[in-house]
Amino acid sequence: MIEANRPDLRSWVDVPAGSDFPMQNLPFGIFSTVNRSPRPGVAIGAQILDLRVVAERGLLDGLGCDRSDFAKATLNTFIGRGKKVTRTVRNRLSELLREDSSLAEDAASVLVEQAEATLHLPVQIGDYTDFYSSEDHARNVGKMFRDPDNALLPNWKHIPVGYHGRASSIVVSGTPIKRPHGQTRPNDTEPPIYGPSRLLDFELEMAFVTHPGKPLGDTISTAEADDYIFGLALFNDWSARDIQKWEYVPLGPFLGKNFSSSMSPWIVTLDALEPYRVPGPVQDPEVLPYLAYEGDAHYDVALQVEIIPESGEGKTVCQSNFKHMYWNMHQQLAHHTVNGCNIRSGDVMASGTISGPKPGSFGSMLEISWRGTQPVQMPDGSERKFILDGDTVRIAGFAGGAGRPRIGFGKVDGRVVG
Amino acid sequence: MIEANRPDLRSWVDVPAGSDFPMQNLPFGIFSTVNRSPRPGVAIGAQILDLRVVAERGLLDGLGCDRSDFAKATLNTFIGRGKKVTRTVRNRLSELLREDSSLAEDAASVLVEQAEATLHLPVQIGDYTDFYSSEDHARNVGKMFRDPDNALLPNWKHIPVGYHGRASSIVVSGTPIKRPHGQTRPNDTEPPIYGPSRLLDFELEMAFVTHPGKPLGDTISTAEADDYIFGLALFNDWSARDIQKWEYVPLGPFLGKNFSSSMSPWIVTLDALEPYRVPGPVQDPEVLPYLAYEGDAHYDVALQVEIIPESGEGKTVCQSNFKHMYWNMHQQLAHHTVNGCNIRSGDVMASGTISGPKPGSFGSMLEISWRGTQPVQMPDGSERKFILDGDTVRIAGFAGGAGRPRIGFGKVDGRVVG
Repeated sequence: MIEANRPDLRSWVDVPAGSDFPMQNLPFGIFSTVNRSPRPGVAIGAQILDLRVVAERGLLDGLGCDRSDFAKATLNTFIGRGKKVTRTVRNRLSELLREDSSLAEDAASVLVEQAEATLHLPVQIGDYTDFYSSEDHARNVGKMFRDPDNALLPNWKHIPVGYHGRASSIVVSGTPIKRPHGQTRPNDTEPPIYGPSRLLDFELEMAFVTHPGKPLGDTISTAEADDYIFGLALFNDWSARDIQKWEYVPLGPFLGKNFSSSMSPWIVTLDALEPYRVPGPVQDPEVLPYLAYEGDAHYDVALQVEIIPESGEGKTVCQSNFKHMYWNMHQQLAHHTVNGCNIRSGDVMASGTISGPKPGSFGSMLEISWRGTQPVQMPDGSERKFILDGDTVRIAGFAGGAGRPRIGFGKVDGRVVG
Repeated sequence: MIEANRPDLRSWVDVPAGSDFPMQNLPFGIFSTVNRSPRPGVAIGAQILDLRVVAERGLLDGLGCDRSDFAKATLNTFIGRGKKVTRTVRNRLSELLREDSSLAEDAASVLVEQAEATLHLPVQIGDYTDFYSSEDHARNVGKMFRDPDNALLPNWKHIPVGYHGRASSIVVSGTPIKRPHGQTRPNDTEPPIYGPSRLLDFELEMAFVTHPGKPLGDTISTAEADDYIFGLALFNDWSARDIQKWEYVPLGPFLGKNFSSSMSPWIVTLDALEPYRVPGPVQDPEVLPYLAYEGDAHYDVALQVEIIPESGEGKTVCQSNFKHMYWNMHQQLAHHTVNGCNIRSGDVMASGTISGPKPGSFGSMLEISWRGTQPVQMPDGSERKFILDGDTVRIAGFAGGAGRPRIGFGKVDGRVVG
């Protein structure tokens, strides 16, 4: 067991019951305050441990990284040190936060209240890839737009289908989402029109952040994949369904997606999630050898999506789980690099919409409202087929709980503005 | 007229007849030598003007940039200053290179032979977008794979169709291209197989490099587009047709493209190409107002592709021209940002394959060999349907010539290795 994951560990920092950030989590992010420039930190309870200050005191010396790694405004340099170093640093931070650590005497200088901090995008994203790896999501879309009896395309069970997305427009939780304008064709017999998207949707996703990979031309196997995945965040792949529908043939989604994607600020390490690995589905037909994997490579992370109207009560519209994925991250990474494509520190690879098998677990309004035919009733009496201006979409998630350490992700919020 | 474009200008640096890099060009790149770390330079004749040395002497002071901009290993900071600054710097460099400039006395310290320099990727690419904007190319592909009588998809004449590509695997001219392995399905009645791509192709493209854009949520109009385009390079969008065919439905090209793209090292400024603007085709049906434009927004750049076998004589397989584009760069940029998508300094946007209307002007082997049915006869007696291991694909291009200043792009070479 990774030392920092021991369930019996307790901290000198107060961790409220039900907190997403107990001792066993220690997710990494970038924060700032009035007096502290953007820098790496680790969430603990309702506090942030300031890694710049901790490093400047020499408490992270000798672990394979440099003090200056923690003076940077992104995590790329730290993550760039590789898995061994990030694991060692997390274990050291766990020691420093334990109830017997003398760092408690310095609480005033090393801790910052989360409520007083601004959280930033944790990495500078070199490339962003989005997969399409939930079978239930792919089936739902196929049933709606193609053949209900033949919903999956021929390649779907052979390939973890993915595409490249836009890195520049990925924003941190809390950033307002401007409703995109663009070209749509509401009526197939008339010319396209220009205007605001009328079918703005969320997509419930998780995204993993990579360590540096191998040189261009080399591959990463499923067995090696763990070593190249630093951690995970919650991800909302905002989608303008009407723009997407008109543009996406034959080269895929473009302006229907690239106006914004929202990411949660805390990256939960793959190490912290280690106790929550679970088996995946049986894959039939059998996959090609480069996609085969051993052991449990799925993760049990409970996920939910809430829509909160501008001045009203929210409604949970989806409860899903990351374990529902057909293709796991090992397979996604092995596929992405099988042709020699290189990855860099801080690349982001998102799962695709994570839908479960039953109504109530669908990860987009497209599926929840079944293309607008089954509107959601909101507590204030209004209906939602898609997302309206003023709505906040909130995704939250956690592993564990119920007697086991709760490895939470916090949340990713996005409020749509017109 | 931009001062540096004056046809009568002559340099104290020897510019051989037919050089791609006369006084009127002054393209920017990143070079290094045994004694000089990677830094910005400008090509002039067979030489490179070392901008770091020029800047350190104060010769670029007061122009809106910092001396340290020219000590960087990419052009992003310089390009990040915006069009007014890059234009002013190019005009100043033109003065310094004129036959009456006293800089000639310092030739030994400010000039480097191109033959002794290593050229690097000129920008750190934040995001890479590839368009699909040549009508002849889109028609050829449509005829081959869809309906010969209805070759263009319904959206094609309404939208400059584009998709996101992979930035990490864009390499500078001269970098070997490893033949990708991956999943293909040669026979529709049998399962897919794994192995090296058997249908490796080039795509003749040009790519523009951007200045920083507006904040996320804002748009750039066709009238504003010039101010956000720094310059252009030659681009080879290597494509594995068999991998692409099996994977691309419904989310577009992924592993069939992202194993490598090759870019020429010199970025020719849009300013240098100003005298070579030409009208584009009449667009029918009329485009939506956000895609309408005024003036000449196409460029007359002659392009050619040569295949050079490992130990044999090369053959020119394509002669095309950038003016054949249906959608121009102004329209591409206006479309890309119409939904509020933000662009950054050093983003790369490629044209898509530039095919002309006639055989001999097609920009990919897919079209040249018409899906393998019409092999190309090579001088050594061999045939090419697609690209073989050991082949070098060389793209070259220039504007002007025939009595006007030749604004050349140099070349982009890529040799395929197994």
